[in-house]
Amino acid sequence: MSNDFGKRISIEEVEEGNTFTPKFDKNGLIPVITVEDSTSEILMHGYSNSEALLKSINSMEAHYWSRSREKLWKKGETSGLTQSIKKILVDDDQDCLIYRVEIGGLGASCHVGYKSCFYRVLDGKDSLTFTETEKVFDPEVIYEGQENPTKL
Amino acid sequence: MSNDFGKRISIEEVEEGNTFTPKFDKNGLIPVITVEDSTSEILMHGYSNSEALLKSINSMEAHYWSRSREKLWKKGETSGLTQSIKKILVDDDQDCLIYRVEIGGLGASCHVGYKSCFYRVLDGKDSLTFTETEKVFDPEVIYEGQENPTKL
Repeated sequence: MSNDFGKRISIEEVEEGNTFTPKFDKNGLIPVITVEDSTSEILMHGYSNSEALLKSINSMEAHYWSRSREKLWKKGETSGLTQSIKKILVDDDQDCLIYRVEIGGLGASCHVGYKSCFYRVLDGKDSLTFTETEKVFDPEVIYEGQENPTKL
Repeated sequence: MSNDFGKRISIEEVEEGNTFTPKFDKNGLIPVITVEDSTSEILMHGYSNSEALLKSINSMEAHYWSRSREKLWKKGETSGLTQSIKKILVDDDQDCLIYRVEIGGLGASCHVGYKSCFYRVLDGKDSLTFTETEKVFDPEVIYEGQENPTKL
């Protein structure tokens, strides 16, 4: 699939080289792990396509592809919870990225209102315990009139 | 798709409830971010299916689904670089997991020989700089005779 980045020529170059040749899956997406740069806390897990990645690199503001809304998404365009990118890392086979960011606005990243999307820990096989007990913001205010992106 | 975990009944329960109801994609997979528990360093990004997740929970040793080898994979079964799970976290819509682990053996996680798979940072649009400069192990020794899982 053609994209805005370099061609993947050899496994050695992909794994050990200095050329960025990200691999997009058959839907044109690459997973992105978003980390708060100052604390190393994992905030969210999303996806970019070639256009969202290029916009992220050029603006150093995090852009994603929303699978549920099927559109390019500049983080914070509705909520003000922008993500200013400090660094982008890539893994060995270049099919996953990390955006290291600082959060704008109220300092949260999760549409449910918590700072991180990972606010629950598994306790046994079926049960979850909350690790964040207070929301940073009220999603019904911040996202008033917007459809919830979570799907069953 | 039926799996070994609970049914997803409502968005409210998925996002705000205490019941673990992970969502597997149409290939039966859920992405897993693996983090070193003691340092919070991101080690790798992989996938589990229902069976690999259940084995991980029951044994507290990390299991994954290898997409390139198309098989269940107990991390460290070839290399000795096992991952002992300390905590499993889940995100808001329960379609992504974090395994917080401690690494066995030589203390690395990446098949190329580095501690983390994320050993390169983007420098401009096309160029990568190494953040790890020395390999922890020689993959040609540890994985002798095994096919490289990286695909172009």
